[in-house]
Amino acid sequence: MFKLYYAPGTCALASHIALAEAGATYTTVKLDFKANQQNSPEYLAINPKGRVPSLVTDRGILTETPAMLAFIAQSFPKAKLAPFEDAYTFAQVQSFNSYLCSTVHINHAHRMRGPRWATEESSFADMKRKVPQTVGASFALIERDMLRGPWVMGDTYTICDPYLFTLAGWLEGDSVDISTLPKVADHRKRMEQRPAVQKALAEEKS
Amino acid sequence: MFKLYYAPGTCALASHIALAEAGATYTTVKLDFKANQQNSPEYLAINPKGRVPSLVTDRGILTETPAMLAFIAQSFPKAKLAPFEDAYTFAQVQSFNSYLCSTVHINHAHRMRGPRWATEESSFADMKRKVPQTVGASFALIERDMLRGPWVMGDTYTICDPYLFTLAGWLEGDSVDISTLPKVADHRKRMEQRPAVQKALAEEKS
Repeated sequence: MFKLYYAPGTCALASHIALAEAGATYTTVKLDFKANQQNSPEYLAINPKGRVPSLVTDRGILTETPAMLAFIAQSFPKAKLAPFEDAYTFAQVQSFNSYLCSTVHINHAHRMRGPRWATEESSFADMKRKVPQTVGASFALIERDMLRGPWVMGDTYTICDPYLFTLAGWLEGDSVDISTLPKVADHRKRMEQRPAVQKALAEEKS
Repeated sequence: MFKLYYAPGTCALASHIALAEAGATYTTVKLDFKANQQNSPEYLAINPKGRVPSLVTDRGILTETPAMLAFIAQSFPKAKLAPFEDAYTFAQVQSFNSYLCSTVHINHAHRMRGPRWATEESSFADMKRKVPQTVGASFALIERDMLRGPWVMGDTYTICDPYLFTLAGWLEGDSVDISTLPKVADHRKRMEQRPAVQKALAEEKS
């Protein structure tokens, strides 16, 4: 039994979908970011970073999306969500997810989270103006070099797919024209057909 | 046989140390960042992101430090650099490394890499001013909650250790007072005693 702490519209959706794909038994706890619930003493006791997602397991609490995704895949081997038996192929999966977390998500975060890295309003506005360019460039690289199709790793669905789907869901908000990214757009549509994706999205809306 | 592309003073040192710890056979290629060699057509053919490190393997090229570290560990199981057999413990290793790449390294990068995320000189200066605070806060969390001692994961040395050592080497440049981080300082000294660390550092100086 797992418990996932999330907030709607965040990268926690990737782990939520992966839990559903794996056929895991889980519950979810929704945090209200507008009420700054992620920085409440109760939540900081769960995740001292004050971020989502957090995954409560029988052994302890895990944080950081790439680690959680690999954990879910490894815990449910029958779902075949990551190729653990092949170090090189697994590393390709991990490399893609690491790029999403350390470059793509970070580029996106400069639209709303400027105060993490600067102090002046003028800097926040400057960062925000650059987001369409930086997010656009990182997705252009995904489109050109990384997304093999039909799934990220080619014919096999992996933990890269819910993560890409989640971050691609931010493109419109980041003013990136998704029509310039036909493979990413196709991937998003293909993901929306999957029962696990529909289940996770419905749970986050309820 | 592996070939590691690196630049001195970068996060590539973590993978370099891991290769030495694993007893891997490898060569290194030094890039000159001052000459912008990471964006040369020759290097972009190896890594279209224009970043280091890149690891050339018999199967293809890998990028992104957390993925490369896990790959090196999995490829050399006798070195026992990561607990693959235990999904939860492996996830803790991955979670730590993911925090380093997506939060600690990013905080640090705002000192010199402001143009990645903004356009105005005033924004770069503003970002730079905040770095001691943001890097300091992320290392304070590592000191308080993450670094178990003597190694990151406790008694067992893992791929977390060369990565922490590498990023902790930037503290002085980021104007963070390492005397406020006694466990991190001890860890750095302990790492400096390891033959693999000395080997990698000597190779990067030569």
